[in-house]
Amino acid sequence: MASSVDEFVQQNEKRFLDELFELLRIPSVSTLPEHKQDTARAAQFVASSLQRAGLENVEVIRTANHPLVYADWLHAPGKPTVICYGHYDVQPPDPLDLWQSPPFEPTVRNGNIYARGACDDKGQMYMHVKAIEALRSVNGGSLPVNVKFLVEGEEEVGGESISEYVPTHKEKLKADVALVSDTELFADGVPTLCVGLRGLIYTEIEAQGPARDLHSGMFGGAAPNAVYGLIELLAKAKDADGRILIPGMYDDVAAPDQSEIESWNGLPFSESEFLKHEVGATTLTGEPDQSVLSRIWARPTFEVHGIAGGFTGTGAKTVIPAKAVAKVSMRLVPNQAPEKIVAAFKQWVQQNTPKGIQISVRVLSANPAISVNPQHPAIDTAAKAFSDVMGKSTVFIRAGGSIPIVGEFAQHLGIPTVLMGFGLPDDGLHSPNEKYRISNYYLGIRTIAHFLDEFGKSN
Amino acid sequence: MASSVDEFVQQNEKRFLDELFELLRIPSVSTLPEHKQDTARAAQFVASSLQRAGLENVEVIRTANHPLVYADWLHAPGKPTVICYGHYDVQPPDPLDLWQSPPFEPTVRNGNIYARGACDDKGQMYMHVKAIEALRSVNGGSLPVNVKFLVEGEEEVGGESISEYVPTHKEKLKADVALVSDTELFADGVPTLCVGLRGLIYTEIEAQGPARDLHSGMFGGAAPNAVYGLIELLAKAKDADGRILIPGMYDDVAAPDQSEIESWNGLPFSESEFLKHEVGATTLTGEPDQSVLSRIWARPTFEVHGIAGGFTGTGAKTVIPAKAVAKVSMRLVPNQAPEKIVAAFKQWVQQNTPKGIQISVRVLSANPAISVNPQHPAIDTAAKAFSDVMGKSTVFIRAGGSIPIVGEFAQHLGIPTVLMGFGLPDDGLHSPNEKYRISNYYLGIRTIAHFLDEFGKSN
Repeated sequence: MASSVDEFVQQNEKRFLDELFELLRIPSVSTLPEHKQDTARAAQFVASSLQRAGLENVEVIRTANHPLVYADWLHAPGKPTVICYGHYDVQPPDPLDLWQSPPFEPTVRNGNIYARGACDDKGQMYMHVKAIEALRSVNGGSLPVNVKFLVEGEEEVGGESISEYVPTHKEKLKADVALVSDTELFADGVPTLCVGLRGLIYTEIEAQGPARDLHSGMFGGAAPNAVYGLIELLAKAKDADGRILIPGMYDDVAAPDQSEIESWNGLPFSESEFLKHEVGATTLTGEPDQSVLSRIWARPTFEVHGIAGGFTGTGAKTVIPAKAVAKVSMRLVPNQAPEKIVAAFKQWVQQNTPKGIQISVRVLSANPAISVNPQHPAIDTAAKAFSDVMGKSTVFIRAGGSIPIVGEFAQHLGIPTVLMGFGLPDDGLHSPNEKYRISNYYLGIRTIAHFLDEFGKSN
Repeated sequence: MASSVDEFVQQNEKRFLDELFELLRIPSVSTLPEHKQDTARAAQFVASSLQRAGLENVEVIRTANHPLVYADWLHAPGKPTVICYGHYDVQPPDPLDLWQSPPFEPTVRNGNIYARGACDDKGQMYMHVKAIEALRSVNGGSLPVNVKFLVEGEEEVGGESISEYVPTHKEKLKADVALVSDTELFADGVPTLCVGLRGLIYTEIEAQGPARDLHSGMFGGAAPNAVYGLIELLAKAKDADGRILIPGMYDDVAAPDQSEIESWNGLPFSESEFLKHEVGATTLTGEPDQSVLSRIWARPTFEVHGIAGGFTGTGAKTVIPAKAVAKVSMRLVPNQAPEKIVAAFKQWVQQNTPKGIQISVRVLSANPAISVNPQHPAIDTAAKAFSDVMGKSTVFIRAGGSIPIVGEFAQHLGIPTVLMGFGLPDDGLHSPNEKYRISNYYLGIRTIAHFLDEFGKSN
């Protein structure tokens, strides 16, 4: 089976790439209202692709924001059911001037596809569709397992619609395991399964000082400054080493098992390479008593994603700004309850708001961290399939990011998720010049097909 | 003379207002390159007005940025020469949505002209022109003193061109006293001369963290964040009470004389009114051991005028920003040397730059504070003229803002400046809905004419 899938993929390489390019050309930026029609077009594109791949009951499901896409193929009686999840929405491409080629005109350079969403997650989501197509093609129209697809368009904005949909459609979505390809290989050539994800609390903070912008000559020294007030508040959130100072932040943090830490120590990881090729700063930062992998996988964070207020145009304007805003998030690790941290954060804001400033906090989303047991039969089969295709042992890692759907599936469907991703650490997700390696796109299609095949056989 | 000037002003009220409105309609925002043609138009308007008022040798002088306007009338032999200064450029009008009427369409409400520049400084500068016109008209084409005009278009952006022009044209600009109307009455109905101005150091600060925006899930906890780095740095500049922590900041600060402090204590000033009607915040801030007037007139400041970095659009984007910028100024008081404070600030930045962040500082301007001796004959005459017209004793105050030309005139022409302004404390300079009271516009024209008349008689 594997070899015939491989052959099919090889014969269809160009078409598989052309189809993905078509999807990448749709600027389906979910956070920007002006792209509403584009997200609708992307949903339609996904639905048509599923139809063409032989999936049935294809639906574009309207929601309060961006549509969901559902499809299934349920003709393998006695075999397990796999629900494939992905997202067709992407992050905004700004800052635009740093892109070497237009973000929504996929361009090939050095064996990579450069485009917003190439890796996160259009390229990876589309591998699922092509794996199904390949399996059916070499299998006389049949599949080794039952398959459901649920693809969303709000992953980059909190996933509100899918998190309403899943608990209200448990029967429809019933499955034995979920498959998500929205993660990466630990390093080039290393088969990797992700068994832990951090949670995320995302907030908007607004500061108000004087009633209007004031002349800093006439009022400077006696009037509160909203920008400075927000700066003063946020600076109190961490010490110089990056340790979070919000009371209670570390109270419930579950430390990784010794065995997990040991396996991390065995990973091919170089701090200096990480600094030089991925971060590109003068030095790494963060809690000095934690390893870098622990800092990004197993420790909570406090991050300011953006700040704006007052005058920042060309030249000099001497105002005391009345308003300032910031986007602030906290990443959570296993055992931290989002609602508890939200409450601790709000209380901390209240207790640390500078004199003369009024601060409001709006919580946009709050999701807990996720862990998957690597001994689970589906994870085990996935690890073996991955090793088979790549000829190396599969490593188990965590990811510092958040994929809220994994939590929804666990909570409402009671199933684990195979996090089998094919991105590379320098793929530049959320950054200018996001890329995805073309050979990993084909590798993903083959590996996913092999996993589904093996998973069907083992059950 | 006074009564005939008053009559002339009264007969021409409508025309004087219409002419000012024409000038206010020109959006001569000096800091924005897209308004370059507007500043040129405003300069031309000023030149034509001076010509029509009977001034001679009218010149629009090209500079590297916005033009200067010069004119003179030198036919009063044996009489002193007064150089009138003003500026035709204005601050940007943003935030636009807070204006009740368009910033460049002057609108009358409750006896006030609402427009950007109505008070600062088009309305006040234009009083000089109209005062000359009135004096000549009632005096058979003659004037009681010799008069020169020097009007600039870069006051809001650092005044680079005029500060090059003054030292290289000392003979041309030679005068006995300068007259500047770019300040305000201490309170409605109180004749006020300003005898002290704070200096200003204006800087742009840029922070660089990682080489590009990073995914906060993948890198959060180990990568430096340019926005947070800038926040951490700036927060160290002041303590919670507003005392500046940059070493050396207060070393050379000259405290006001006891007599000056006593006269301030006698001014009609109410902290609660100031807070409620002018600042509009929950409380005033700043050094607790200093009076409010002392804080805004006689103490240095550290102010962040604006900050920008990362993502602040609608919704959630989880980046670790690579870059952030802030506009930062320090107001200086008598005896502080700008170059010394610039050096102290740069050293402080260097010593307090957070780990992983690179900070660059660009100094846009650096001017010292200014004091004028209230016993000087020109100031004395101005005080008496002011009292005559308004029927109350003139008070001597300081202003917290900076009018760099006053320093240039003192340094290069060796002359003091009469700072005779007619703005009101709530005129909203640099803010949305800037206004100027119409009756103060006429009052200014009459008072200036009376001062020039008395100054001619006393010499």
